[in-house]
Amino acid sequence: MPRFLTAGESHGKCLITIIEGFPAGLRLDLQFINQELKRRQQGYGRGERMKIEHDEVEVLSGVRLGRTTGAPITFLIENKDFPSWEEIMSLEERKVEPVIVPRPGHADLGGYLKYGLEDLRDVIERASARETAARVAVGAVAKLLLREFNIDIFSFTIAIGKTRVKWEGDWESIKEKAELSPLRCPEVSGEEKMKEEIDEAREKGDSLGGIFQVVAIGVPPGLGSYVQWDRRLDARLAYAIMSIPAVKGVEIGEGFTSASLPGSAVQDEILYDRKEGFFRLTNRAGGIEGGVSNGEAIIIRGAVKPVPTLSKPLRSVHLRTKQSLPAHKERADVCVVPSAGVIAEAMTAWVIASAFLEKFGVDSLEDIKESYTTYLERLKRM
Amino acid sequence: MPRFLTAGESHGKCLITIIEGFPAGLRLDLQFINQELKRRQQGYGRGERMKIEHDEVEVLSGVRLGRTTGAPITFLIENKDFPSWEEIMSLEERKVEPVIVPRPGHADLGGYLKYGLEDLRDVIERASARETAARVAVGAVAKLLLREFNIDIFSFTIAIGKTRVKWEGDWESIKEKAELSPLRCPEVSGEEKMKEEIDEAREKGDSLGGIFQVVAIGVPPGLGSYVQWDRRLDARLAYAIMSIPAVKGVEIGEGFTSASLPGSAVQDEILYDRKEGFFRLTNRAGGIEGGVSNGEAIIIRGAVKPVPTLSKPLRSVHLRTKQSLPAHKERADVCVVPSAGVIAEAMTAWVIASAFLEKFGVDSLEDIKESYTTYLERLKRM
Amino acid sequence: MPRFLTAGESHGKCLITIIEGFPAGLRLDLQFINQELKRRQQGYGRGERMKIEHDEVEVLSGVRLGRTTGAPITFLIENKDFPSWEEIMSLEERKVEPVIVPRPGHADLGGYLKYGLEDLRDVIERASARETAARVAVGAVAKLLLREFNIDIFSFTIAIGKTRVKWEGDWESIKEKAELSPLRCPEVSGEEKMKEEIDEAREKGDSLGGIFQVVAIGVPPGLGSYVQWDRRLDARLAYAIMSIPAVKGVEIGEGFTSASLPGSAVQDEILYDRKEGFFRLTNRAGGIEGGVSNGEAIIIRGAVKPVPTLSKPLRSVHLRTKQSLPAHKERADVCVVPSAGVIAEAMTAWVIASAFLEKFGVDSLEDIKESYTTYLERLKRM
Amino acid sequence: MPRFLTAGESHGKCLITIIEGFPAGLRLDLQFINQELKRRQQGYGRGERMKIEHDEVEVLSGVRLGRTTGAPITFLIENKDFPSWEEIMSLEERKVEPVIVPRPGHADLGGYLKYGLEDLRDVIERASARETAARVAVGAVAKLLLREFNIDIFSFTIAIGKTRVKWEGDWESIKEKAELSPLRCPEVSGEEKMKEEIDEAREKGDSLGGIFQVVAIGVPPGLGSYVQWDRRLDARLAYAIMSIPAVKGVEIGEGFTSASLPGSAVQDEILYDRKEGFFRLTNRAGGIEGGVSNGEAIIIRGAVKPVPTLSKPLRSVHLRTKQSLPAHKERADVCVVPSAGVIAEAMTAWVIASAFLEKFGVDSLEDIKESYTTYLERLKRM
Repeated sequence: MPRFLTAGESHGKCLITIIEGFPAGLRLDLQFINQELKRRQQGYGRGERMKIEHDEVEVLSGVRLGRTTGAPITFLIENKDFPSWEEIMSLEERKVEPVIVPRPGHADLGGYLKYGLEDLRDVIERASARETAARVAVGAVAKLLLREFNIDIFSFTIAIGKTRVKWEGDWESIKEKAELSPLRCPEVSGEEKMKEEIDEAREKGDSLGGIFQVVAIGVPPGLGSYVQWDRRLDARLAYAIMSIPAVKGVEIGEGFTSASLPGSAVQDEILYDRKEGFFRLTNRAGGIEGGVSNGEAIIIRGAVKPVPTLSKPLRSVHLRTKQSLPAHKERADVCVVPSAGVIAEAMTAWVIASAFLEKFGVDSLEDIKESYTTYLERLKRM
Repeated sequence: MPRFLTAGESHGKCLITIIEGFPAGLRLDLQFINQELKRRQQGYGRGERMKIEHDEVEVLSGVRLGRTTGAPITFLIENKDFPSWEEIMSLEERKVEPVIVPRPGHADLGGYLKYGLEDLRDVIERASARETAARVAVGAVAKLLLREFNIDIFSFTIAIGKTRVKWEGDWESIKEKAELSPLRCPEVSGEEKMKEEIDEAREKGDSLGGIFQVVAIGVPPGLGSYVQWDRRLDARLAYAIMSIPAVKGVEIGEGFTSASLPGSAVQDEILYDRKEGFFRLTNRAGGIEGGVSNGEAIIIRGAVKPVPTLSKPLRSVHLRTKQSLPAHKERADVCVVPSAGVIAEAMTAWVIASAFLEKFGVDSLEDIKESYTTYLERLKRM
Repeated sequence: MPRFLTAGESHGKCLITIIEGFPAGLRLDLQFINQELKRRQQGYGRGERMKIEHDEVEVLSGVRLGRTTGAPITFLIENKDFPSWEEIMSLEERKVEPVIVPRPGHADLGGYLKYGLEDLRDVIERASARETAARVAVGAVAKLLLREFNIDIFSFTIAIGKTRVKWEGDWESIKEKAELSPLRCPEVSGEEKMKEEIDEAREKGDSLGGIFQVVAIGVPPGLGSYVQWDRRLDARLAYAIMSIPAVKGVEIGEGFTSASLPGSAVQDEILYDRKEGFFRLTNRAGGIEGGVSNGEAIIIRGAVKPVPTLSKPLRSVHLRTKQSLPAHKERADVCVVPSAGVIAEAMTAWVIASAFLEKFGVDSLEDIKESYTTYLERLKRM
Repeated sequence: MPRFLTAGESHGKCLITIIEGFPAGLRLDLQFINQELKRRQQGYGRGERMKIEHDEVEVLSGVRLGRTTGAPITFLIENKDFPSWEEIMSLEERKVEPVIVPRPGHADLGGYLKYGLEDLRDVIERASARETAARVAVGAVAKLLLREFNIDIFSFTIAIGKTRVKWEGDWESIKEKAELSPLRCPEVSGEEKMKEEIDEAREKGDSLGGIFQVVAIGVPPGLGSYVQWDRRLDARLAYAIMSIPAVKGVEIGEGFTSASLPGSAVQDEILYDRKEGFFRLTNRAGGIEGGVSNGEAIIIRGAVKPVPTLSKPLRSVHLRTKQSLPAHKERADVCVVPSAGVIAEAMTAWVIASAFLEKFGVDSLEDIKESYTTYLERLKRM
């Protein structure tokens, strides 16, 4: 089964990821991957760092003559500001003072206690959301695979701070609008309000969270399974989405809303059309019933808490003296919701691609295409 | 690492689970385990089946002289109504007609297509929530382990249908109230409204969902990790909770609410007391920061959609003729939120116990206790 | 990915296994499975227990109307002498004295120390080779799957004690001869010598080991992979074979012999025939090159040490008094090599079936057949 | 649990490995790691490439101020001859002819068919033994960890071609002799014969295999387990050793020899000494009984087949024309047995370190030391 590991510190030399178990024969469009990295870095409300660095992958393995070979794929993403951090990040002796006042809302204190560290820097560097750049590169490869099967994954922002938007139109137009919006928001007037909220928060030295929605179009029925808890597609998606830094909630389909509705208003009646096969008029389930994809769009929402690093730091404790002090300050954004959406696309793409490969084979893109076609034909006969 | 598999059909002979990788030396309180099974079966709004069956585990392996031996633990839970289903569930030739009209909101259609089945019965039997009885038995063992370390896990109902309650008091009293309530609701007047909603839904042949909250008290800081996405404790919990049938949303701490608040109102400032060590006055993070437990109570909420099997069935399609027909009807409950809370306790206990054993060792309860004590002492020195 | 867990003590109520991730639609031939269990129990040199018990599986889940449903398959194998062990194996208080003198050559001492036990009985019961009955049932299901694809797995004995046989003829005839031989030995005169050695050992209160060979016929090229160490088919087979109690060595193809030959005499030249495709005249590699099956027969040998429980026990130590004493005695066989071969077939079948399902899909037998046919056709075109 | 992935092609830019789940606080001695890489490259009988390249790791992540931080550790090992391969290994369009005649004894044909490739180069590059440089770096980190607990792992050559040596003296002196020998052989006269065999083979354009032995000293009792097949330490070691390219056989302790001896001559009687605790006078089991370490030295042997790439190539088939032709030739060694031993040390170190961390905790070296001390003290009391 496909697996990947990421490595790298926020201000170390680079981020790295190894992707193992992806099929041979996939055209690896580097421009697309770098474009995905760029999408992660954009967004109204992002801090200065995003302007310094334009992430790009260097391919270290697994690709030859434009295509994957079946061997592990390695991407390296340079940290362009490493030179100014080299002393702090020294491989050898200590040259600078340790960070000693943990930031509330981060892994700082928990990580320090868990690993028995002497310097919060060691937590800060790895617990940083910068790690997600590597995940976006992984997700980009997953997206490239899924595209071969007409599966498309995109995201948009539906809330920032107190502003929540409604949207209209088909998925294609929503996706387009989101891509054009600096907040990835498909609704113009809402977006204006969001910007105002962000500006206000920035002035106050505060930060804002929000909600993103990820949509996966073209997913066939039959991914995931109900036979064992850890194989449910909804569970695997929740795992992946909740693993994104700052995400504190995940919903599939109607999610929390469905909890307050009667059963008759929550399920999606089943219809049949000779051309379309089985279909639904509604999609409250968000494309997954009983842990299995049902052929409708898969819909996931994630709640992003406000970035915990504030320019007006919160109260914390000096780890040696135990004195109450303002928390350590690290360069930070005011609002990262649009980026979180892009990362969530990547994680969604990974989960769906994994389930897809488990079902249709993992070795050769050509063989997988044959298996997939055969499967779709069988579905038509059922 | 601890792992478990469950097996068994809803109307087969029995449910079975094998738990592998649990330490030796744990006193296995069968009465407690059976009490947990009973808690799952209770609740205002449950159907007739709950009155027929009083689940009990039979221990088939892994326990001798009252204690675990380190060997895999097997529990068998008999399905007491199997005799009346024996023909339908026959191991050999078919004796009854197949189920042929899938139920919206269930795995029926997706499972049928995925596995290429001829009878929806094969999906219905395994995708059934009855499987969770085995999980509750697994969770009970995890709870017994955690109890040895003063970690307590409980749940309560905070919403059913349109009724959402607020609660007061310390965790101990909330837990007690929930245990006494047929809806596991710690607030009396809210509970009355919930019952009314349920009665109303039953009359209409409809069903209701709701929201449960799970709380884990006494969890040490340092479980889970930020170093790799799949090791985050919040992600692992979301995985486990979303895997519960009918759950469509998961939150940690303030969850979706935190998405609309400013950062200054979302984080939990860090304080220190010579006796208590590091602590917080608030717990908006729900006990997990950066994927790592921080020593505060772990708080998870799950959104349960209304049971999809309605006594007034929804529209569906005959799989052979493609004719539009009312969905197949299976015996069902009106509201399962309290049970879902109990199942969520079990899954939470499993995840926390797993992370605990990964950190403190897996072989001998005595050794684990020593490691844990040493760890707590180290924390005091930090 | 397919996975299975076994559970159960040697003298407990039963052995159990749950097999998860096997496709739907496989006809489950119970007679075949029970026949496999019987094959494990036979063999000249087996002890009394084999005469008491005739193992049979009871299917507890995963099968309906004669076929697998995709749900986990559970087998229960009753321990027929449990009634006479009930006091010793009591779930509750102790009724008999603990076993207190560890047997050399068994897990007794290591297990006792690892798990911090008080009674060696807790090790003896789970470390017993009886556990392999459950594995044989698992392997039988794997064999049934592989049969659908004309993959056949069998074994024979090539050495017992000092007697080593040579064999002649094609695989079919060797298999047949082995099945008719009480020592699973395909060569008659060698078999006679083996029996004599066994009789002699029995008289002396001693035991004998030997060597088995497993052969898998019909395995397509392309199972396993060189891209990551843990995916190599030879490595996975070595893992599975070395996990069989008493096995102390594993070889693929020429194995240790190839270490002393020149390279020109060890590799298998590649030829091509329009009808057969690529083929070899020799098979020194044992069907696996670079961790990948090459289409030739897969050949594995395992070295079985003599059973460590002797009727003349070896010297050991009383765990409380530390006094030197003869080791605890447990009912035992003189020679288990033929059984070890049957168990090795099961483990080989499991590994190959797993690699097969990873490559061709895991859900529906019908789909897997289509994928496999398509693959074989692609191979012909290459 | 600790895990690692390697990536990189033999003539690509570099090899990379990410090690995940190793504890914080381990001093990372780079000189030691590079020395291990050098040990892999040495040996009488190695080809020209070993003289070109002196492998060195570049640390890309996971280490700061000389110690591991708990974050994933990444090593990059540059391929120094990449510049001369850049055209062949091009990420973009093809500039050179594909390799089209598979080498017998390599993954070439199986990999080509499996992945549906067009150029054997894609197999050759990843199936190359060069990948093991990354594993040696991983193993070096595992060794550094084990050293903290006085566990030492080393290897020596016991056979090359037809020459098999006997050795004398204690482990320390054997280790020393092996380190000083260009063939890693602890016996001088045997070594001379081995060199002669190698010279002879080189002249003939042939190659030689042999046998290495790995020894792990200081391993505590209780690593590995008998409770589930995949947790047996011997099985895990066989998995790891058989995964080394060219290894075709693995033995633990007496291995294949024990198959021909009576039980009374194979087991290791148990003795007790107030100071030493439980001990043995013999170690035929090779330190593992019933899948669990018993406190004695762990002894593993691996059979290495002769390198399949010969300077006088074997017969093969042109993949397009199907014409019979000499196999493709790739730069190669005459004998790699000493290197295989070094790689086997690395894989052994990985397996033992993994089992060690599973037992004693994975987070902080300090905590692991405490757990280990406590465990050893408990063992003394038992």
